[in-house]
Formats: sequence, structure tokens, C-alpha cells
Amino acid sequence: MISVIILGSGNVANHLFKAFKKSDQASVKQWYSRNLHTVKQFQDQTEITDNLSQIKEADLYILAVSDDAVKELSAKLPFEKRLVVHTSGSVNIHNIDKKHKRGVFYPLQTFSKDAEMDFTNVPICIEAIESKDYHLLKKVAISLGSPTKKVNSDQRQVLHLAAVFVNNFTNQLYRLGHEISESEAADFDLLKPLILETAKKIEHLSPYMAQTGPAKRNDKTTLVKHLKLLNDKPLHKAVYQLLTKSIQITHGGKKL
Amino acid sequence: MISVIILGSGNVANHLFKAFKKSDQASVKQWYSRNLHTVKQFQDQTEITDNLSQIKEADLYILAVSDDAVKELSAKLPFEKRLVVHTSGSVNIHNIDKKHKRGVFYPLQTFSKDAEMDFTNVPICIEAIESKDYHLLKKVAISLGSPTKKVNSDQRQVLHLAAVFVNNFTNQLYRLGHEISESEAADFDLLKPLILETAKKIEHLSPYMAQTGPAKRNDKTTLVKHLKLLNDKPLHKAVYQLLTKSIQITHGGKKL
Repeated sequence: MISVIILGSGNVANHLFKAFKKSDQASVKQWYSRNLHTVKQFQDQTEITDNLSQIKEADLYILAVSDDAVKELSAKLPFEKRLVVHTSGSVNIHNIDKKHKRGVFYPLQTFSKDAEMDFTNVPICIEAIESKDYHLLKKVAISLGSPTKKVNSDQRQVLHLAAVFVNNFTNQLYRLGHEISESEAADFDLLKPLILETAKKIEHLSPYMAQTGPAKRNDKTTLVKHLKLLNDKPLHKAVYQLLTKSIQITHGGKKL
Repeated sequence: MISVIILGSGNVANHLFKAFKKSDQASVKQWYSRNLHTVKQFQDQTEITDNLSQIKEADLYILAVSDDAVKELSAKLPFEKRLVVHTSGSVNIHNIDKKHKRGVFYPLQTFSKDAEMDFTNVPICIEAIESKDYHLLKKVAISLGSPTKKVNSDQRQVLHLAAVFVNNFTNQLYRLGHEISESEAADFDLLKPLILETAKKIEHLSPYMAQTGPAKRNDKTTLVKHLKLLNDKPLHKAVYQLLTKSIQITHGGKKL
């Protein structure tokens, strides 16, 4: 059994803890949080502590903390030459204090506070300095049911950036769609099957091939009509214009 | 049995035809296309014609043609006082020639050419001048398995516009994410579970509540890092800046 100690108490820490409970190859030996009350409810399930000097020996230490905290917390850990990983999309592996064996264990997914996450839908991007450590991290990820991929810091950085586009920005488009439909008291729920189909479509088709609509067709009648509808919403209009332009550049209609 | 005649041979016409094949309450009596070869493959399954003067009598005529063609084709139909509907998101019901009983039967979904569409995932937005016609259209939609909603022309117009945001623009964000990940030879497939989860999340949470990420948190370190990564991609950068601003206005951090 691979012994794991989780440090941190945010969404990622919580979801990892729950996922490890189901693993038969790795288990959480101890859970550290600066604020003990955030993990108190789990004290029957694992040992909890808010004291760095009481952290035990384990095969793997997972820093599921904010980006800014990785460097300092890893330096403060009162041991060395053990495998310490962070879970961040944008922090370089070398931000972990060099007294440790270092790695990254980045779950590329959006975690909600309450909803349970099925880790078969959580790809883990793995990086390690030593190949031995890489193999241990891979074993741990597989034991959670996750697909895994070797990803270096540069690649992880662009994946994290791309994730902002396909997750945060996409969600904002849903929000703008919500606002637009509500402006005429139209039911946003009518758009939900379309939203899901749009996401599913690219499972088997590239986004390039999946594109349709007035921007791609350069259907000027519709484009003019839409811009007119957005006349009293300048920011929505700016988004409409910029993404229309982006689509037309992608599909060869326009130059930058 | 409600008798239906389809006019047009694009994606919507094809998907409607296939859906009617499974209905036990409505059936396609005839299929008109200007270019007979586009429907020739279905001639064993229904009567086909390219001659408007040979169009038969039926309970419902569905014009599944391009937006521009609705007005002219409806005027050319050699009969009157029968129920004629179009399937467009942005064409006013009054564009159908007034000699007919008029309606709209707008399937709010993205149709791929080849993939079969399950009509339980295709909400049909219905509009009619006469309440009797509305009820017939509703019955037809339900017989296809579709959810239905009464939607007037103003509402349909904003739904169509919102659909561009949540479908075409979202798909373009997937494309930009694809380009960004490929710039470091990172695997775009790693983002697919996130894309699906982002779409699924709003089934039970409003897009407002579902938002996360550096823009919402106003995490300046990450925002600066991301913009730097996009320095050689001015259009991607512009999209990043505009949607970050949009998120921050939505979530109260910034004023327009």
C-alpha cells in the first residue's frame, strides 16, 4: 500500500481524499491543514494535524494548496529526500524546495465543492524529476481510476491556459447566453441540450471540423441582425464581434 | 395520422425526416426538394418531387430551407389556407406568405450531417397565429419525442442569438484551446473531460454560480502569466482580455 499525506484543505484536497478512500493501492495516512477545523469532520477516517512538526513518514506528500503557498510550504516541511508533489496547473516543478524529490500531480478538471467526482473523468498530468518517482505517481493516479499523461512544466502551463478558455471562458459564454435569453423572458433551459451537444460533438470531431453558424458561413444578414439585437449591450456586442472575427480568421475568411 | 410534407434537403430536413420515420402519430407524405438528387436516396421511403405543382394535400408543410428562401418559397406554394411552418431561429413568422395558416417549428439544436440525433434532446420552439395550429404543432413535436415550448418571434430571435454564443462561440473557444495546447505539443484530448464537465455543470447550477478561475478570483499572478504566454498570439490575447473583463464585470469586480 502506497502511503500518502495530503496537505491543504481546498476543493482539490477534498476530492483527492475522497478518491483515495476508494483506492486499494494507496491510502491517506495523514491530512495536514493549517486550519484544523477545515478537516475535523474527517478525523474518524484519517489522522489530522495542523502541526508541521508532527507530519509522519510517507511515500508521497501532496501539496494541494494555493499556487503562492507551494514554495514556502515545501521549504518548511521538516524532512528531505522524500517525494513531494504539488497539484497546480501553472506552478513550475522547481518551485518545490530542492531538498525534496519533486513532482507534479495535476488533475485537469473543475471540481465543485459538493458534487462527487468520478476520477475516471479526471486526467492526471504527471511530471517528476526522477523516473522512479514518475512511475510511483503514475501508479497512484491509476489507482484512483484516472487516465494519466506525462506532461512537462511548459506543456502543463499551456494546458492550464487552454483550460481557462474551454472552462472559465466557455462558462462565461453560457452566462452571456443566459442574459441574452432572459432579456426577452425566453427560457435558458431550452439551450441546455445544445450546450451539451456542442461539448459532446468534439469527442469525435475536431473543433475546427465541428464549427457551424453565421460567422463561419459569413451570413451577413444574420450577423447584422444579431449585432442590432446587441445594440444596448456593448460588452456582449464586443464579444460577438471578436469571436466572429476569430472564427472567420480560423476558417480563412479574414486576415488578422 | 398527421400527414406532413417536408420542403428542403439540408441538415434539418434530413434529421426531421429520420425522426418522423419513428413517429407513430405523424408521417412524411411527400418530400420536396428543388434538386431531386439530394433526396433521391429516400424515394423508397416516401414520395419525392422537385415540382411545386405536384405537391399534395397534407396537414402540415415544413419549410426546412435557408432563411432567405422562406418568403419566396411560401409565396410560390400553389395552395392556401393550409398550415405552413418554417424551422428558422431568426425569421419572423410573418415572412411566411399570409395566404397560409402560419407557424414556426424551430428545433433548437446543432445537427451534424451524419450522426443520428435523438429528438428527446431537441427542444422544439413553437409559434403559431391560431391556437388550433399551435396544438397540432405541439402534438407533432411530442410525437418526435421532443420537449416543446411556446416561443414568440422576439424570444426565438434572442434564443437564436444566445445559441450562437453557447454553440458557435463556445466551439471557437475549444478551437483556441486546441491551438494553445498544440503550441507546446500538449495533448488536447486531456481537456475533453473538462469540456464535458463544464457543460454538465450548468444542468443543475446557473452559469453565474458555476464560474471559477483566475478572472473571477482576480488572481493577478496567473492573469499576468497567461497574458505573457499569449504575447505572440494577439487575437487569442484579445479574447483572453475581453472575456476576463466580462467575467469580472459579471462578478462585480469591475465596471464597464
